[in-house]
Amino acid sequence: MDIKNKSITSRDEDFAQWYTDVCKKAELMDYSEVKGFIIYRPYGYAIWEQIQNYLNKEFKKTGHENVYLPLVINESLFQKEKDHISGFAPECLVATIGGTEKLEDRLIIRPTSECLFTEHYKHIISSYRDLPKLYNQWCSVVRWEKTTRPFLRGSEFLWQEGHTMHSSEEEARHEAIQMLDIYDKMGKELLAVPFVKGKKTDKEKFAGAKETYSIEALMHDGKALQSGTTHYFGQDFAKAFGVQYLDKDGKIKNPHQTSWGVSTRLIGSIIMVHGDDNGLVLPPFVAPIQAVIVPIQMQKEGVLAKARELKALLEEKDIRVKLDESDKTPGWKFSEYEMKGVPLRIEVGPRDLQNGVVTICKRNDGKKETLKIEEVADEVVRLLGVIHEEMYQAAVLNLSKNIKEAHNLEELEAIVSKGGYAKVMWCGDRACEDKVKEMFNATSRCMPFAQVKIDEKCAICGKEAKYLVLFAKAY
Amino acid sequence: MDIKNKSITSRDEDFAQWYTDVCKKAELMDYSEVKGFIIYRPYGYAIWEQIQNYLNKEFKKTGHENVYLPLVINESLFQKEKDHISGFAPECLVATIGGTEKLEDRLIIRPTSECLFTEHYKHIISSYRDLPKLYNQWCSVVRWEKTTRPFLRGSEFLWQEGHTMHSSEEEARHEAIQMLDIYDKMGKELLAVPFVKGKKTDKEKFAGAKETYSIEALMHDGKALQSGTTHYFGQDFAKAFGVQYLDKDGKIKNPHQTSWGVSTRLIGSIIMVHGDDNGLVLPPFVAPIQAVIVPIQMQKEGVLAKARELKALLEEKDIRVKLDESDKTPGWKFSEYEMKGVPLRIEVGPRDLQNGVVTICKRNDGKKETLKIEEVADEVVRLLGVIHEEMYQAAVLNLSKNIKEAHNLEELEAIVSKGGYAKVMWCGDRACEDKVKEMFNATSRCMPFAQVKIDEKCAICGKEAKYLVLFAKAY
Repeated sequence: MDIKNKSITSRDEDFAQWYTDVCKKAELMDYSEVKGFIIYRPYGYAIWEQIQNYLNKEFKKTGHENVYLPLVINESLFQKEKDHISGFAPECLVATIGGTEKLEDRLIIRPTSECLFTEHYKHIISSYRDLPKLYNQWCSVVRWEKTTRPFLRGSEFLWQEGHTMHSSEEEARHEAIQMLDIYDKMGKELLAVPFVKGKKTDKEKFAGAKETYSIEALMHDGKALQSGTTHYFGQDFAKAFGVQYLDKDGKIKNPHQTSWGVSTRLIGSIIMVHGDDNGLVLPPFVAPIQAVIVPIQMQKEGVLAKARELKALLEEKDIRVKLDESDKTPGWKFSEYEMKGVPLRIEVGPRDLQNGVVTICKRNDGKKETLKIEEVADEVVRLLGVIHEEMYQAAVLNLSKNIKEAHNLEELEAIVSKGGYAKVMWCGDRACEDKVKEMFNATSRCMPFAQVKIDEKCAICGKEAKYLVLFAKAY
Repeated sequence: MDIKNKSITSRDEDFAQWYTDVCKKAELMDYSEVKGFIIYRPYGYAIWEQIQNYLNKEFKKTGHENVYLPLVINESLFQKEKDHISGFAPECLVATIGGTEKLEDRLIIRPTSECLFTEHYKHIISSYRDLPKLYNQWCSVVRWEKTTRPFLRGSEFLWQEGHTMHSSEEEARHEAIQMLDIYDKMGKELLAVPFVKGKKTDKEKFAGAKETYSIEALMHDGKALQSGTTHYFGQDFAKAFGVQYLDKDGKIKNPHQTSWGVSTRLIGSIIMVHGDDNGLVLPPFVAPIQAVIVPIQMQKEGVLAKARELKALLEEKDIRVKLDESDKTPGWKFSEYEMKGVPLRIEVGPRDLQNGVVTICKRNDGKKETLKIEEVADEVVRLLGVIHEEMYQAAVLNLSKNIKEAHNLEELEAIVSKGGYAKVMWCGDRACEDKVKEMFNATSRCMPFAQVKIDEKCAICGKEAKYLVLFAKAY
């Protein structure tokens, strides 16, 4: 069915509907027969592949190795770490029939793989020589969700999960921060999305973790989106699973553990940070198509030939370029590739060709310029860098404008209800977090690493303040 | 636990045990808590990543796009194509509980994704302009198996599955053959494994397919291993799922469909075709480590420095090289990397260094030579090509030696019981296939594309012969 070139809802009219329109009409995804399980269409999956390529290089540089562990966890194994099971049990998909038989030990489709990795590590770690173990896996996980939204919250999503074991607490804690920094760098270099980095409160941390760190992104509607997390587990899993090693000093010890992950949720973040009323706006380095060539009056002599020549020139520069030779009208193609957020459009028409030029248009701000054909390839390379920087700076500006200090509940409400982060001092009591959630439906996103004391008192209860924390409504 | 450097069973003494030893001791895999679900360890997974890189390039060249479809199929959807469901129902893992609730429509963990792709195609195909659709997905599938063996037969395995829709039968049939040829080329160029290509008999073809084609490899023990299949479906799935498009001629039509896949089974094929009594022998282009540098008398001045220098030189040539600086003995390292099948070992020792040379050893035949240090990088590049060709030719020779003609049951038995392919004329009746299975536990592997008439009569029943077919015992 041709769902293209239908107008989409404007962002400010109905942001949720705008988001769904973009997901569908930019052909990033489609719904399947099973609620919460989406289809990643070629254009959406290609974005994920760009993210995979970026992270695989970073993971390798930092000594990590890819592995693949089973899709299923037998229930008895899953129950070894109590906090962990209590956190995940309510959202597990459980297999009870294998072939023709009822399973004695039911199988949980992995919601996350701490149990599987820790059990495996028990078998392959016995000496300090075996440490550190730095494994990562790319896979899908299943969490049975009541309300789902494409990329943001699904019953199945794609992600990478790193699981590491270390001989010292220092090293493990360093790993958890190092991986958070890699995610943050990806935001800056690939997604053009600035993140707030910080530590989660006890209420918000991962089931079974000692510490959880996160990167939080701010969407166009002022809501926060947790875009990645890293966890320091201490030795709890290792003890629960009996992972031990003989250290240099001849003593038997439990290793220190971390895990960390980002998911296809990042695609949601790209959409909601950069998109506009014409659809998707993709940062150049993550864009499956970086430049699209649209021939004008294709039938005119020389147009198609020149367009193909141009395509070859751009490919020589490793630019991901598409030439649309279909019989659709130029107008159709313009809005189609606008909808798909292609960073650059190059128009090749007979009039321009007579003057030896082409017209190039930037998706992020619609600016057009005329280029000599011999300059195009180099200029496209330059413009992709420019567009990335412009998109990143725009997002940085929006973020900084929307982090505001609040010193009491009234100010806090004013900020989070309008959209954005309320920066407040907090006493550290969960009761205050619960109160904010209850009153304003906002949650503590993180305690930024840069802790400054902006007040003596907790903005919620007035008791002595301990931490600077960011509250926001969140996805 | 240190499982290294323990001797392994010899191939001729107990091939099955030899295989398991290699899988474990080369650290390709480990067992998980759930029978039939293995752990792909870094060294084994890296082989799979090499296969993925090779195929992704080939798939892209031929216009295919990667996608990701759901892990689960609701039972009602799965039952739409009758032959298909009857083929797979007995080996499905079924989820019946989601979160806290019992599922009304039970979910089958995908054993293969024809149903999912066809249903998706129904939603995105409406015009001849939408064809062809050439999708591929990398994922894991689950088939509940009674007897499992690492890589060869598992309840979960990794694979790629291509699913395509075409406007004409010719185009779809061409696709099925084209993809088989790509698999065959991968055997020649990457795995150093020669395949027999052919068409499956009706008895052996895929549930729901009109035609199934396969690549068959011959293992060291004389058993065949089906290493990949491609299928032409005709319009049956399209009709069952209601996939229709408006053709140029204004008529509503059903598209013609194919699917095709290879799995981590290929790793088993590499092991059993090339391995020897010292362990794994990896073809150079699929080897995660192509050359390992082992320093001799590391503490001696200059040794480690020179070894690192050499490593840098090889990396400049994009050779996947490892320098083992661990405190293990050279002897330990020699057998470790032999076990792991690393194609080239480079020994860097003080005596050689005085003469400005190093010693290089080929894993496939143990031949050693001394090289001037300045020649090493170029020579390693050359030797990797030589080793690949030697391994491929050895496998070709073994294959050709073990395809023998049989003109009656006695000859057929003699061949398949000794190991290898019996090349026989066959009447085309399933009864004859069943008889061979029953009498000799051998199955028809394929009807080679090169059909020659070596006899007038069926070697099994004596009736008029129709096809040349290969019988063998198989994994």
